[in-house]
Amino acid sequence: MRIIKDTTPLEDGYRMPGEFEPHQGCIMIFPERPDSWQYGAYAARKAFVKVAEAISFSEPVTVCASAAQYDNARAALPAHIRVVEMSSNDSWARDYAPTFVKNKEGQIRGIDWGFNAWGGLYDGLYFPWDKDNQMARKLCDLFEKDVYDKRDFILEGGSIHVDGEGTCIVTAPCLLSKGRNPQMSREEIEETLRQYLGVSVVIWLPCGIYNDETNEHVDNICAFVRPGEVVLAWTQDKEDVQYEMSNACLAALEQARDARGRSLKVHKLLLPAPVTVTKEECEGLDSCDGEPTRMPGERLAASYVNFYIANKNIVMPGFGDPMDKLAKETLQELFPHRQVIQIYARDILIGGGNIHCITQQIPANI
Amino acid sequence: MRIIKDTTPLEDGYRMPGEFEPHQGCIMIFPERPDSWQYGAYAARKAFVKVAEAISFSEPVTVCASAAQYDNARAALPAHIRVVEMSSNDSWARDYAPTFVKNKEGQIRGIDWGFNAWGGLYDGLYFPWDKDNQMARKLCDLFEKDVYDKRDFILEGGSIHVDGEGTCIVTAPCLLSKGRNPQMSREEIEETLRQYLGVSVVIWLPCGIYNDETNEHVDNICAFVRPGEVVLAWTQDKEDVQYEMSNACLAALEQARDARGRSLKVHKLLLPAPVTVTKEECEGLDSCDGEPTRMPGERLAASYVNFYIANKNIVMPGFGDPMDKLAKETLQELFPHRQVIQIYARDILIGGGNIHCITQQIPANI
Repeated sequence: MRIIKDTTPLEDGYRMPGEFEPHQGCIMIFPERPDSWQYGAYAARKAFVKVAEAISFSEPVTVCASAAQYDNARAALPAHIRVVEMSSNDSWARDYAPTFVKNKEGQIRGIDWGFNAWGGLYDGLYFPWDKDNQMARKLCDLFEKDVYDKRDFILEGGSIHVDGEGTCIVTAPCLLSKGRNPQMSREEIEETLRQYLGVSVVIWLPCGIYNDETNEHVDNICAFVRPGEVVLAWTQDKEDVQYEMSNACLAALEQARDARGRSLKVHKLLLPAPVTVTKEECEGLDSCDGEPTRMPGERLAASYVNFYIANKNIVMPGFGDPMDKLAKETLQELFPHRQVIQIYARDILIGGGNIHCITQQIPANI
Repeated sequence: MRIIKDTTPLEDGYRMPGEFEPHQGCIMIFPERPDSWQYGAYAARKAFVKVAEAISFSEPVTVCASAAQYDNARAALPAHIRVVEMSSNDSWARDYAPTFVKNKEGQIRGIDWGFNAWGGLYDGLYFPWDKDNQMARKLCDLFEKDVYDKRDFILEGGSIHVDGEGTCIVTAPCLLSKGRNPQMSREEIEETLRQYLGVSVVIWLPCGIYNDETNEHVDNICAFVRPGEVVLAWTQDKEDVQYEMSNACLAALEQARDARGRSLKVHKLLLPAPVTVTKEECEGLDSCDGEPTRMPGERLAASYVNFYIANKNIVMPGFGDPMDKLAKETLQELFPHRQVIQIYARDILIGGGNIHCITQQIPANI
């Protein structure tokens, strides 16, 4: 694995493909952390295994497990899913596995962004985050991809979505957070995205999903279906604080032009009813730095937009909500060539994210 | 990775290839353990890196490093050598990386033998050995090879050598040790080797190298050069306790017939002068279970036979001894199509083994 410091992907002819472009595989991390995953992570592991199995219908899946959890992960996952030992602080492959970029010859390289647990000492979610921050490089080494060293720029994979044709969507509260790159102007951040993702246009959404502790990652509110088309998390309940937020995002999307000069077609994806944490769930979580991780009644950032686009499948969350069925039908219409698999994901959601957050695709080298 | 429990490699048409047959790669482990590697393993790491570099001229090398040592290993090794995180108790890839077997279609599977640190609670060298014992399976998973579960049979890779044509050489003090499989008869052990290595003849040597703490592994005293030809560690010094030992092995080899009915051609490889540990070296070793790891003046099992056959190279030890040159010339004559690279290996030897002990080949799938 060569570590590249002196050039950028854009300079070298690399771009980040859209998630809907072909993959050679998917990376996940086996959950373990007892202040993230209630009651010793047993329920979360079952949900992660279902996600891995669903994705493995489409593409090879590699699951990273700690030394302590390797045997458990190996026993829990089917034989055709690879388990590798790799230490981490938690299980968010989207946010700290490499962002992969590709050139016209189909060669793949990784980007090793800096990671600081969604805000570092300013408003990060745990400390330390050293093992998470090592993962991108370890994974590039494992998959034998050269890697761009961009640890001086804090970015999570869940805070960007691209169309593969020069357009990136981000949310302002995340990328402009004081916990990320406060020394950089918005223009400097855009330029970094251009250089590393190989994009020319960055669309800024004013917000994400209410109470999303990632500072409102884009991957929970809006995702590309294909170039020129996005889904947007939506609610018709004017009393819901999310109503104004989703409307503000719609306005931004309607004003935007993508890198090819197109207006975006916006598909609304209705949210489930608000999901809140129960007292029993809270009692199954270790404290973090002596503080409770969650409080009973706390609203979770449940959204159907947090799905993964596998080669042949869409793997999306369900919440046991009447809206689950409609959301599945909506995505099935939007992805007619992929079978939508819906997985009950409350046990992932309690950890703070969802299916897109726990996966990271490796583009195919074709 | 499928775990195979119900059939044996012989039943499934698999055999262990000779080390001189083509490889698809080599596995090593970055040294760390402070009661094995003097003065914090810094000198040992330099020697391991030289070995990895030498082998990498021939074939892809993957080096396993603990989470704590990953960054150090990555920095110490050149970019074209892969580093993967994997925990272990020490650094003897030969002994607990998988033994790989191959069928006529070129498919490769691993064998996961039981490992108990060269003798378990009877006369093993450290406790615990749990992480070492997990490595074979983890490595099969990493390399996407199905694995035979043979953990109920204790065997180290360094205690066997095969010609790939049905013959295996072992030493009696190791394979019949009370610290290995004392519940099994010699015939049962032979039958296990037949079933798992795909051999029909097992040649038993009466001993190995004097004071070899592995219970005299065969890979330190005798190795196949090609089918029908072996090298044997040798001394002309009748005062040396090794003299009788090497002569006894020669007698056993001269009596033997291999699986094809051939007599073996035995090439003598003269040993260096006895190598002993210095007081300064002992002072650089942590104690093990409260006991000194080595005593000043202790004789080490130095032998030139402990070399690795890479695709294009022979990687062999040197000891700063006048015999180094002759040993190199001898091996160069025996392997005319491979360039012999000699690496100063005292810092590996102090750990208790040598270049063959710290490497494990993966046969090519051709």
